[in-house]
Amino acid sequence: MSTDMSAELEIFNRRESEARSYCRSFETVFTKASGAEMTGADDKTYIDFLAGCSSLNYGHNDPDMKEALIAHIADDGIAHGLDMYTHEKARFLKAYEDNILKPRGMDYKVMMTGPTGTNAVEAAMKLARKVTGRRNIVAFTNGFHGMTMGALSLTGNTGKRGGAGGGSLSDVTHMPFEGAFGDDTDTLAYLEMMLDNSSSGVDAPAAFIFEPVQGEGGLNAASDEWMRGVARIAKKHGALLIVDDIQSGCGRTGTYFAFESAGIVPDMITQAKSLSGFGLPFAALLIKPEHDIWKPAEHNGTFRGNTHAFVTGRVALEKFWADDGFQNDVQHKSAILTTGLQAIAEIVPGARLKGRGMMQGVDVGGGETASAICARAFEKGLIIETSGADDEVVKVLAPLTIPEETLRKGLNILLDAARDVTVQTKVAAE
Amino acid sequence: MSTDMSAELEIFNRRESEARSYCRSFETVFTKASGAEMTGADDKTYIDFLAGCSSLNYGHNDPDMKEALIAHIADDGIAHGLDMYTHEKARFLKAYEDNILKPRGMDYKVMMTGPTGTNAVEAAMKLARKVTGRRNIVAFTNGFHGMTMGALSLTGNTGKRGGAGGGSLSDVTHMPFEGAFGDDTDTLAYLEMMLDNSSSGVDAPAAFIFEPVQGEGGLNAASDEWMRGVARIAKKHGALLIVDDIQSGCGRTGTYFAFESAGIVPDMITQAKSLSGFGLPFAALLIKPEHDIWKPAEHNGTFRGNTHAFVTGRVALEKFWADDGFQNDVQHKSAILTTGLQAIAEIVPGARLKGRGMMQGVDVGGGETASAICARAFEKGLIIETSGADDEVVKVLAPLTIPEETLRKGLNILLDAARDVTVQTKVAAE
Amino acid sequence: MSTDMSAELEIFNRRESEARSYCRSFETVFTKASGAEMTGADDKTYIDFLAGCSSLNYGHNDPDMKEALIAHIADDGIAHGLDMYTHEKARFLKAYEDNILKPRGMDYKVMMTGPTGTNAVEAAMKLARKVTGRRNIVAFTNGFHGMTMGALSLTGNTGKRGGAGGGSLSDVTHMPFEGAFGDDTDTLAYLEMMLDNSSSGVDAPAAFIFEPVQGEGGLNAASDEWMRGVARIAKKHGALLIVDDIQSGCGRTGTYFAFESAGIVPDMITQAKSLSGFGLPFAALLIKPEHDIWKPAEHNGTFRGNTHAFVTGRVALEKFWADDGFQNDVQHKSAILTTGLQAIAEIVPGARLKGRGMMQGVDVGGGETASAICARAFEKGLIIETSGADDEVVKVLAPLTIPEETLRKGLNILLDAARDVTVQTKVAAE
Amino acid sequence: MSTDMSAELEIFNRRESEARSYCRSFETVFTKASGAEMTGADDKTYIDFLAGCSSLNYGHNDPDMKEALIAHIADDGIAHGLDMYTHEKARFLKAYEDNILKPRGMDYKVMMTGPTGTNAVEAAMKLARKVTGRRNIVAFTNGFHGMTMGALSLTGNTGKRGGAGGGSLSDVTHMPFEGAFGDDTDTLAYLEMMLDNSSSGVDAPAAFIFEPVQGEGGLNAASDEWMRGVARIAKKHGALLIVDDIQSGCGRTGTYFAFESAGIVPDMITQAKSLSGFGLPFAALLIKPEHDIWKPAEHNGTFRGNTHAFVTGRVALEKFWADDGFQNDVQHKSAILTTGLQAIAEIVPGARLKGRGMMQGVDVGGGETASAICARAFEKGLIIETSGADDEVVKVLAPLTIPEETLRKGLNILLDAARDVTVQTKVAAE
Repeated sequence: MSTDMSAELEIFNRRESEARSYCRSFETVFTKASGAEMTGADDKTYIDFLAGCSSLNYGHNDPDMKEALIAHIADDGIAHGLDMYTHEKARFLKAYEDNILKPRGMDYKVMMTGPTGTNAVEAAMKLARKVTGRRNIVAFTNGFHGMTMGALSLTGNTGKRGGAGGGSLSDVTHMPFEGAFGDDTDTLAYLEMMLDNSSSGVDAPAAFIFEPVQGEGGLNAASDEWMRGVARIAKKHGALLIVDDIQSGCGRTGTYFAFESAGIVPDMITQAKSLSGFGLPFAALLIKPEHDIWKPAEHNGTFRGNTHAFVTGRVALEKFWADDGFQNDVQHKSAILTTGLQAIAEIVPGARLKGRGMMQGVDVGGGETASAICARAFEKGLIIETSGADDEVVKVLAPLTIPEETLRKGLNILLDAARDVTVQTKVAAE
Repeated sequence: MSTDMSAELEIFNRRESEARSYCRSFETVFTKASGAEMTGADDKTYIDFLAGCSSLNYGHNDPDMKEALIAHIADDGIAHGLDMYTHEKARFLKAYEDNILKPRGMDYKVMMTGPTGTNAVEAAMKLARKVTGRRNIVAFTNGFHGMTMGALSLTGNTGKRGGAGGGSLSDVTHMPFEGAFGDDTDTLAYLEMMLDNSSSGVDAPAAFIFEPVQGEGGLNAASDEWMRGVARIAKKHGALLIVDDIQSGCGRTGTYFAFESAGIVPDMITQAKSLSGFGLPFAALLIKPEHDIWKPAEHNGTFRGNTHAFVTGRVALEKFWADDGFQNDVQHKSAILTTGLQAIAEIVPGARLKGRGMMQGVDVGGGETASAICARAFEKGLIIETSGADDEVVKVLAPLTIPEETLRKGLNILLDAARDVTVQTKVAAE
Repeated sequence: MSTDMSAELEIFNRRESEARSYCRSFETVFTKASGAEMTGADDKTYIDFLAGCSSLNYGHNDPDMKEALIAHIADDGIAHGLDMYTHEKARFLKAYEDNILKPRGMDYKVMMTGPTGTNAVEAAMKLARKVTGRRNIVAFTNGFHGMTMGALSLTGNTGKRGGAGGGSLSDVTHMPFEGAFGDDTDTLAYLEMMLDNSSSGVDAPAAFIFEPVQGEGGLNAASDEWMRGVARIAKKHGALLIVDDIQSGCGRTGTYFAFESAGIVPDMITQAKSLSGFGLPFAALLIKPEHDIWKPAEHNGTFRGNTHAFVTGRVALEKFWADDGFQNDVQHKSAILTTGLQAIAEIVPGARLKGRGMMQGVDVGGGETASAICARAFEKGLIIETSGADDEVVKVLAPLTIPEETLRKGLNILLDAARDVTVQTKVAAE
Repeated sequence: MSTDMSAELEIFNRRESEARSYCRSFETVFTKASGAEMTGADDKTYIDFLAGCSSLNYGHNDPDMKEALIAHIADDGIAHGLDMYTHEKARFLKAYEDNILKPRGMDYKVMMTGPTGTNAVEAAMKLARKVTGRRNIVAFTNGFHGMTMGALSLTGNTGKRGGAGGGSLSDVTHMPFEGAFGDDTDTLAYLEMMLDNSSSGVDAPAAFIFEPVQGEGGLNAASDEWMRGVARIAKKHGALLIVDDIQSGCGRTGTYFAFESAGIVPDMITQAKSLSGFGLPFAALLIKPEHDIWKPAEHNGTFRGNTHAFVTGRVALEKFWADDGFQNDVQHKSAILTTGLQAIAEIVPGARLKGRGMMQGVDVGGGETASAICARAFEKGLIIETSGADDEVVKVLAPLTIPEETLRKGLNILLDAARDVTVQTKVAAE
């Protein structure tokens, strides 16, 4: 390790809060990044299978976005304009309308919430309660929706909930996500029974919220039937349907929204992570026009509408979503990913594939094994993380733009790492 | 209005949620901004007395930050790295330590929360509850701390609270801020009585949170005595002291932190708005080391540590806070501001000055008058907004870097606007 | 109707709150009652198959209790002594120890809560939270535990919950009671899965609370296996087990406690209704000695320990529970009840039996039919009520001391009433 | 101590929960009671200055009530009839209408809640929220309203609140009672300011609830002006006014209701304690007819309308409230009480009188002194207890029917006890 890097690591220990996390798995100081690769202070280059947890679907420093952003800044374009009207916001909205809404026959109002996923979720919760006059919101096992008190009440993870320090996480009913009781049990039937029974103790809900593929919860992918089932039950009970597409959206599963194949029309959709295209903080809430009953500033915030993100986000929409090319490419790479992960699953006893599209991984049976594989992979030049209630899933979230060769290279590293760990475990067991 | 601007305004009406707010006061489309001025699509230039609600203390597109940011992007510097260690984060922390903490003899851990003020506040609330094992938090009348459910529970404004749609805003006790009962009543005595009485029904608090100058609440400035009193009462009752310096910090009142003159040492300090220096989304929570008991990722989020903001934020620290020059300059301009506002107060019957430093305004007695003055000012080329429970305060939040001449020019416009409105009102009354 | 009775009914309309309920089904003014019969102001006598909702297990005005109570009053025995030590309280506790605890090998402290079932439930909730330091309590579908805010949070019924007027009913998770998904689904497996999954969003519970037979919820009787399963899961998760035996206890199901056959040892048991033996307000909470961590007066109330109820309650214990005679008699009558209800079930299409012991009824498929049967029965001289989420169960809660002849007579009236309603319905359908 | 008494004390230790309280101050076993005196198992007779905490305003075993109750029981009158119509309920309501409502020009519906004060309070809270559609309820410092979760949320005492074990006590704002800041501070002005300020964070209240004289909180007596002020503020803010007259009502302060002198008309009034006249469990909620929007059984309970209490409660109304005689007598005795307490206050340094009517006491400056005085008084044959946040008030709650001679005798014992303790303290200090 270089002297400089040691000094820098020291300042993190000295000054950065214990809450820091990813840095603990990847003990280096990163300096540059491009496409699907990141470079450390030691000039070592890593393939990035984490991609900002799906915030970098178009890779690091996409050249077109980069160019547009530099031009904007150089030209004294607005950096911060609160939620005033700006030229760049207009252009972004136009591009969103033309490339996303119109081709899909969708009609939504766009709410620029604070530039974090949790803020978009909080806005959705508040609005659903305002619209329906009800308080209860149904969320699902293994769901992850954010860390502020509203979003945290929806989040299933015990450790995260413990972070509330005893603050009330109320007005939410947690129900089983598809597959939560194993494949044989119909979780929709359960959901319906609890809501149909007027003495179940589950209050009439304002909304149902789910992730089409649970990113933090272990890459649990809801089937189209299940998504349609939740939509039907929500409608039957006068509740709104909120799809949290923050991690699964922006092309991650092979279509722009992760629920497109189900043919459902959510009342609200949360977006963040890759919405800016460049990794800049940005979030939005799509709202069916009839539900857009906010009063001006009723939910506000300083950084609503990050203007730099409008610039890069617009370029992303125009570059990747004007036609089917990108989408088809993602689906092609998804097949490569499936094949690569199957090879890994074969060598880890009891392992099974999870997820769909470019949001897949391998459940290796336990958090210890998964962490060991990821740590070994990092040593070999691959950035990758775990997911799941017990961190039992090795999760691949490569940039969607990753070159096929790099994707295969990364998968090979992962296979090697898995092999190393499996062999080690066998040896240790003997 | 140009055709293009009409088309752009149309798309906002068609696609942007009704929650949008500032844009309603400033009906133009902004294209560029530099220093203390913003330019509209109609090429009209406005003096900016709003400054992103104190997010642009160093003005728009500061040339040094701009240069550094462009170089960073051009060089494929990290744009998004989750909370991994990056060279730019290390440099920012170093600059923060050298220019802010050390000179003030402060020892804090820095928590990179989600890049919004409300997220920093939520992190502080959660941590205070974890540290103390208590739930109640004491907040103050006219306090504004954010829109997510935790921060909203601290916020006093009825309209904002109504946005929760009936969701629970519990575990908070609202107490009178200094001056809330008029100048003659000792609000600290009240606070102390309620906490000393074991049968008051006010549960032992985890924390007290206040803004040194209430930005949204009407520019109510706490005296040093009052801040020290709250600190003393918090200590006596085993509660943490959280200072929300989001709007009042980063030099706004004449010192880096708005509580420096009081000589208090808060247990936690929230920062956001001008922390990036450039208007980019960025927030942090300062935590006394002994309270930094977070487990890794116990409070997390995708955009913790906006790397672009590290770049510009570092430049801001090095450029403006390496010595006393900037601070002295701000204090000098504050005096000019006071003089200018006094002139305005003299012509509006019953008006009085509020706030301190470069965070001053005039309470003109009612929201209608204040809005009329701001609207008239905008016609004359000045961007300015109201504040207060009834929007009764005309609030000046000019960039701290504003040239004196521009400041005086803006104040003159404001004086004219106030005169116009006062005359109009008199005529209407006759 | 006599003139006097008209005048009396008028005063109820004029002065008694709309919350009154049972009186609406039985439009007469009652004057006297003895054994299993009540007499109205019109001298008409009714067989009582309601028995104060199981508060009169030993019938009205049992002669031995009556004699003892009159002697106590005549002799200036204490009527009200707060929770001071009284001779009658000592005698009651001794009789409880000798006749209930010792023969069953049970060791419990007795807490005299306020003299209502809901108060005993509230005390149990509070204590479970104190003991465990946790907040969540698991309650079950169709459970009924009372109307004060704590107990109401456990209660499933939507209408009852609506009575809270929007007050928070938080810190409770509602889970499926046995059979809630039909006979084929294992509700224990569901319960276990939700608690085992650390990302289910169901917080670690302080306690589980259930009724062995759900009185208001539709006479759903838990099997021994299910009760043992809940006990096992509670233990595994460090939660207390609270059995709410208020309606099902005091011999109602054939044993003193309704859970005896399951062989479980609850951490707390709530008792009320028939505890006084005479219908007087009285409730108690049994607490395992190691959990009795209350500080003096930490849960108090004016009417803890109704002294008149100590007198009659002691007589009840000595008269009915000194040996197996009464218990055997109840089991014998339960068989008669089953036979009688089967006859009714046979003539109502789709009907099925519910409950066990002297707590049985017939699910007639809908609330309208059940209400019609009860109304017709009242015309014929039988007091009987419905139960269940949709009032679909005709519920028999006759005094356990009812003479066999009267029981058969009542069942015949019920059969006639069911026949009348069934014929009517058929005619109407044709 | 007799052998029998020892055996009885042993069973309390063995079987009664640690929550028991009053018995700890009065270490004897009581056997009989009549008028203003109680007799222990050791045949020692005590003057009762506690009177069931105001539940025995007419003394123990009033001969007329006793006779009526025995006749009722002997004649097989209804003991328990749920909330069915009974002859005795009709007679009680008629007597209440004739002797209480009509003479005072009051029009209220009577809700028979569960027979405890806390249940009446819970019903009032729920109904106020239903009527207004708001959740917040304003309660006052040192208020005591009960131990179930709703009522407990209104109660100020830290120890009592701690009994909730961390369960949520939300939706309540605690405000200063009259005199809470000392005599010079206008608590109504504070209350009004917090409610008038739309950014105070105090949500629009459903109701205000207060006790005219705070029984447990230290005999703080609200002035007529203060009660009128709260009534006015409640009306102005669209909130209901609930007066909790449980301890202060039924003649205790010299009029039937403790707020009569203020001329206010509460929207709801809670009654319990002395309502049955005989110490039997009984409570009621008076509701203005326009607010009686309960659905049948929306707030229910097994022991609503204790029939034995209807019998004795009716006799109490007819015997004591048919004319002014009793009321005048109570006022006469109140003067004697004041004089007696002044004598005590004179010998205890710093002592001062609290309360009004027959609800007076002496604040002796601290809980230790007060407890010592009460303990000494018990040794001398007087039952008396403390009150206040720190138990600093020696509280006299003698039966209103106490003979003057007995009252004077009791006061002399108290004076002696105070003298003993004062002398002891002086000696100890020297």
